[in-house]
Amino acid sequence: MTTLSAPRGHVAIVGLGPGSASLLTPESAHELERATDWVGYGRYLMMASRLVTPDPSITRHGSGNRVEADRARLALDLAGEGRRVAVISSGDPGVFAMASVVIEMIAAGGPEWSQLEVSVHPGVSAAQAAAARVGAPLGHDFCVISLSDNLKPWSVIEQRLHAAAAADFVLALYNPRSRHRPEQFGEAVHLIARYRAASTPVVLAHDVYRPAERVEVVTLEELATSSTLEGVGMRTVVIIGSSQTRQISREGTPLVFTPRSYPAPD
Amino acid sequence: MTTLSAPRGHVAIVGLGPGSASLLTPESAHELERATDWVGYGRYLMMASRLVTPDPSITRHGSGNRVEADRARLALDLAGEGRRVAVISSGDPGVFAMASVVIEMIAAGGPEWSQLEVSVHPGVSAAQAAAARVGAPLGHDFCVISLSDNLKPWSVIEQRLHAAAAADFVLALYNPRSRHRPEQFGEAVHLIARYRAASTPVVLAHDVYRPAERVEVVTLEELATSSTLEGVGMRTVVIIGSSQTRQISREGTPLVFTPRSYPAPD
Repeated sequence: MTTLSAPRGHVAIVGLGPGSASLLTPESAHELERATDWVGYGRYLMMASRLVTPDPSITRHGSGNRVEADRARLALDLAGEGRRVAVISSGDPGVFAMASVVIEMIAAGGPEWSQLEVSVHPGVSAAQAAAARVGAPLGHDFCVISLSDNLKPWSVIEQRLHAAAAADFVLALYNPRSRHRPEQFGEAVHLIARYRAASTPVVLAHDVYRPAERVEVVTLEELATSSTLEGVGMRTVVIIGSSQTRQISREGTPLVFTPRSYPAPD
Repeated sequence: MTTLSAPRGHVAIVGLGPGSASLLTPESAHELERATDWVGYGRYLMMASRLVTPDPSITRHGSGNRVEADRARLALDLAGEGRRVAVISSGDPGVFAMASVVIEMIAAGGPEWSQLEVSVHPGVSAAQAAAARVGAPLGHDFCVISLSDNLKPWSVIEQRLHAAAAADFVLALYNPRSRHRPEQFGEAVHLIARYRAASTPVVLAHDVYRPAERVEVVTLEELATSSTLEGVGMRTVVIIGSSQTRQISREGTPLVFTPRSYPAPD
C-alpha cells in the first residue's frame, strides 16, 4: 500500500551575489532555475531574471523593499502548499538579508512551518566584491556593521562603532546612508575619525559589479567633507581601513591592502 | 610600424570558495582555466584540479602552508615574464589569504612589479558557508577574527575579542586552534564567556562543503568543556552568537539565527 501525502514544500533562500553572472554561484543558479516560485524585492527579481533562465511556469512574487516579514510569510505559506520557493536576496542572504527574516518567522510561527525544508545558499557579499576591486582591505580582522537604524537603536550602532574603531578593526559599513537619515553617516564618520588617522584609506564602492559600478578610494579626512559624504547612498558599501591599511598609487584605482601581520605594541 | 613589446603579465588572485564546485564562482573558474601557471598551497592546487579543467600546458607550483611570501614573489616573478598566473586561495582570497600577501609584496617590491596587472576574484568565505548550513547566525552585525598568533601578538587578539564581545557582535573565528597553540582557543572562549550567556548558540563547522563536512551546534557552556574544545582545529570555523542569537530545534541540525532587529536598551 502506498501512502499518498502532500509534497513537502521547500524554501531555498538564495544569494545572487552583487548582481553579475560572473559571481553567481552554480548552487544559487540551480535553485533559481528549479524553483516554482520566486519571492523577493522587485529589484532583485529583475536582477535574477537577467542572470538565469527560470522554468517558464514560474510565478514571480515581487514586493517593495520594506516588507521583509510579509515576504517571508508568503514564502512559507507557498512552501506549505508544497511548492519549491526561492527567496531572493542580493549579496549573501545570510548577511543583513532574508535568511534571518525567514528563519525568525519559522521560529515565531506554527508547527506547519517547522516541518518545511529550508536551505540557505550563500553568495559573495558587497563588502567582499568591493574589497576585490581595490585589492585586499579586508585582509585582516574586520567588523561588518549595518548603519541602518530601522531595526536597531542608533545608540547601539554608535557603541559598536566605538568598540570596533578602538580595537583597530577594519570596518565594512552596509546601508551607510539613506534619504530618511542623511545625517547619521557623517556622525559615524566623525566618531571613527576620533580613533583613526586622517590619512586612513577608505573605499567607497557604489553599485559594485553592476553596470553603474563606481569605486573610489579616498582618505578618512576626505570622506568627512560634505561633498563626499553626500555621494554615499544605500547602494554604496564603505570600507574604512585600520591603522595598518595602506594604499599603493598606480594607474587607475589605487591598490588598498591590510597586511596579514600586525605589529607588537610598543 | 608595429612596436613589439613583451606581453604584460597578469596575476589573478582567485578564491575557490569552501571547496565545492557548487560554490565556485564562474569568474574564479574562468581565471583558473585561462591561467598559464597556478601558484598556491599544494592542498588548494589539488582542490582546484577537482573543480575545473585547466589548460593542458599549465604549470603547477605547489608549496607548503607557511611560505606565503615566497609564493607571492614567485607569482610576481612569473607574471614579470609575461605569464598569466592564478594565485589560489580557498574561501575568499581577500579574507586572511593570499590577496594581501601579494599586494604587500608589490608595495615592497621594485618598479617592475608595480606595472603588472593584478586582479582579485572574491569567493564565498568559510564563515558564510558555515552560517548557511545552519540558517543565519550572521544576520546582524558581526566581527571576523583570526585567532592565529603567527602574524599578530596574542594581546591584540585578546583586546579585539574583549571589544567585540562587549559590544555584542556575533563573532566568526578563523584558524581557531592548531597543534602549535592548543591552549589559546580555550582562553579565547573563556574570555568571551565573561560577556555572553552560557546558553549562547555556537556553530562549529568542520570542513564545510567538503566531503568530510561536520557541522555542530553547541552552547557556549558546552564549547568550554575540554572535549569540545579539542575537536576544533584549523579546518573548523567557529561562529559564536550575540545576546540575540537563537536556535530552533528540529530534526537534524538545529536552525540558528540572529534577528535583524536589536532591542532598545532598557
